[in-house]
Amino acid sequence: MTLDDTHDQTLQSWLESANDPATDFPIQNLPLGRFRRDPNGPWLAGVAIGDQVVDLQQAGLVASGDANALIGAGKDQRLALRKALSDGLRAGSLQQARLQAALVAQSQVELGLPCEIRDYTDFYTSVHHATTIGKQFRPDNPLLPNYKWVPIGYHGRASSIVASGASFRRPRGQLKAPDADSPKLGACARLDYELELGVIVGRPNPMGDPVGIAQAEDHVFGLALFNDWSARDIQGWEYQPLGPFLSKNFASTLSPWVVTLEALAPFRAPFTRPDGDPQPLPYLDSPANRAEGAFDIELEVWLQTPKMREAGSEGERLSTSNYKDAYWTVAQMVAHHTVNGCNLASGDLFGSGTLSGPAPEQGGSLMELSQGGKKPIVFANGESRTWLQDGDSIILRGYCRRDGFRRIGFGECRGTVLPSHPAA
Amino acid sequence: MTLDDTHDQTLQSWLESANDPATDFPIQNLPLGRFRRDPNGPWLAGVAIGDQVVDLQQAGLVASGDANALIGAGKDQRLALRKALSDGLRAGSLQQARLQAALVAQSQVELGLPCEIRDYTDFYTSVHHATTIGKQFRPDNPLLPNYKWVPIGYHGRASSIVASGASFRRPRGQLKAPDADSPKLGACARLDYELELGVIVGRPNPMGDPVGIAQAEDHVFGLALFNDWSARDIQGWEYQPLGPFLSKNFASTLSPWVVTLEALAPFRAPFTRPDGDPQPLPYLDSPANRAEGAFDIELEVWLQTPKMREAGSEGERLSTSNYKDAYWTVAQMVAHHTVNGCNLASGDLFGSGTLSGPAPEQGGSLMELSQGGKKPIVFANGESRTWLQDGDSIILRGYCRRDGFRRIGFGECRGTVLPSHPAA
Repeated sequence: MTLDDTHDQTLQSWLESANDPATDFPIQNLPLGRFRRDPNGPWLAGVAIGDQVVDLQQAGLVASGDANALIGAGKDQRLALRKALSDGLRAGSLQQARLQAALVAQSQVELGLPCEIRDYTDFYTSVHHATTIGKQFRPDNPLLPNYKWVPIGYHGRASSIVASGASFRRPRGQLKAPDADSPKLGACARLDYELELGVIVGRPNPMGDPVGIAQAEDHVFGLALFNDWSARDIQGWEYQPLGPFLSKNFASTLSPWVVTLEALAPFRAPFTRPDGDPQPLPYLDSPANRAEGAFDIELEVWLQTPKMREAGSEGERLSTSNYKDAYWTVAQMVAHHTVNGCNLASGDLFGSGTLSGPAPEQGGSLMELSQGGKKPIVFANGESRTWLQDGDSIILRGYCRRDGFRRIGFGECRGTVLPSHPAA
Repeated sequence: MTLDDTHDQTLQSWLESANDPATDFPIQNLPLGRFRRDPNGPWLAGVAIGDQVVDLQQAGLVASGDANALIGAGKDQRLALRKALSDGLRAGSLQQARLQAALVAQSQVELGLPCEIRDYTDFYTSVHHATTIGKQFRPDNPLLPNYKWVPIGYHGRASSIVASGASFRRPRGQLKAPDADSPKLGACARLDYELELGVIVGRPNPMGDPVGIAQAEDHVFGLALFNDWSARDIQGWEYQPLGPFLSKNFASTLSPWVVTLEALAPFRAPFTRPDGDPQPLPYLDSPANRAEGAFDIELEVWLQTPKMREAGSEGERLSTSNYKDAYWTVAQMVAHHTVNGCNLASGDLFGSGTLSGPAPEQGGSLMELSQGGKKPIVFANGESRTWLQDGDSIILRGYCRRDGFRRIGFGECRGTVLPSHPAA
């Protein structure tokens, strides 16, 4: 990845809020999203800077406000836009007046999904998650034989992916107690979250034409935070032999801002395999992937119960992990997904799978942290949780830090559980 | 389901080809699809009649040529359109001249996907298929414990669903021989088809609001033929624990014409459970579903090898089955899919899953007919197949016959295998 003057940590903006050391959105970040000024208006492409949004069309930087068109345009156009924004938002820029007129406060607009989601695929790239979950089912043989060869993935539901901030109803479904003769319809009692990153596909590939790993990142626009809510009791009964279905497709939450691969360039990390593990097959291997295929992104999960909310607390941190601990990279996901000729479209979403770290306290779901519901998590105010309760909010956060570079962040990905449908 | 004068078997059209006893598209059918007059033109909503297409917008019957808008408009508008077409196409209609001007020969246009496909879900509703496949893995325990309770389904890939007539490349993927230490990348050697029906969703439901089984069919537009091509060797290695992925998403083929629920009204059948099987849970049960939840649709699969094609043969029939032998109905699919609050959209596609009949020769895939590749199928010209070879075409056909009613058909669903990508 090439670094250029848009990555210079000394760059300051004429917009004061962009220079706040605590902001996720300094001038070095410039993530893309969509916003609207009123509930019936169109979704418009915008870029976050400090506490503001740049309306890209109003600023004269794009021909249309269609975020999917921008996402699909490819790397050259994305680089040109980054450069134009970086120049225009810099302290002392002659374009300050023009860009200032195209700013709107993030607090004054509704932030939506960053684009229209086409197909959604969820991967399973954390070996730590796969091992911990596998142990709950098969203590002596937690990882299936294919895991270290195949970047395991499966298709998910796009229609129920909602924007950060949205609430959703606790799902109903078939539940079967281990000792019961038959299942019953009821409200999910083992509701969980999954800490993931979402990968937004940029340039499409034609059906029948695999994307080689050396070209894979040319087809990626950027990354966002993603919460793949999961109903563990529904999942346990339904998932064999064809995989999770109603246990996942009631809701998934995506953060509003997509951080581009260009913004992430200073925060790349080597892709390595533990001693004794097989090396990836050639179609999943390249020098660039080995040298810097991974991303050093620090992740956090926070829980805010209704009681914490009433007390004015932002909640308690449940866990932290880092995306560089994943077993498969973004480039490997693209190369694998297309090796059979499958065609990707601009606005496709890949979930990384639950990003758990190597330590037990780094589980990316309650299933891991509460050991399948056996060990409650106790909070400072005396409350505890094994699974999510109505009114609970889960907040994901992510950020990149490295010596010599400005810290950039992903904003937050927040969702709140509502009571189940009254028919349950 | 209400029958009205549009179902009268004595109705004749002023269009001669619609009165041909062999046509799939008499005036009693009137299926919806999309066509275009030139390769760069827009896809327009049309209805098949005999060997012609009615251009609905040109005929003044719809405001726009957008098939998804028509599909989502709901039952009342669909009934009004059926009535208007039936009246206008009848022998002696005063509207003959106006409609004749809006006809174009099917042979003169390109027929596309019947609508833009949003999310795609594949079900697994044939207990005969599930049992035969299960036996190959677990001879003593072929059906998993959830099968008779849960209408098993999983998410599929929408982007690679192609229109009837399209060719597709044999997929590449990870293949692992049972006695090999590690997998290799290679071209699929166990390529298969799956005989399915596709269900096109009409009226959407909001996220969080389940559709009760009594209202379920109000959310269905109609049915088409669907071939869910499958790479059995890729599938065997990749599918645990999250289900099929690259073994399915390289291509699926949908027929051009969606036969509406109104056209299918005379061909409904009771939904029954074999003695000793559990009755469906209340959310999957209704008097109407029991009385006429199933569809009596006869299905056929044909194979045409390159040699047969050269010899001018339409191919050989591999098997027949009937949709009424499925274990779960369309209404049960809708009620189950939404019971957790999942939101359906107009243009969503459900696959029925492979529709195998109760007899061994009624398998809806080569996996069943060739007993997992062990028993070649031999043809009259001396050729044989266990799996599909390059150049092979699979043609699905479907039709409804019942005393007192005009036979209606689904047209054909055809796809052809091309050699794999040269990089393999």
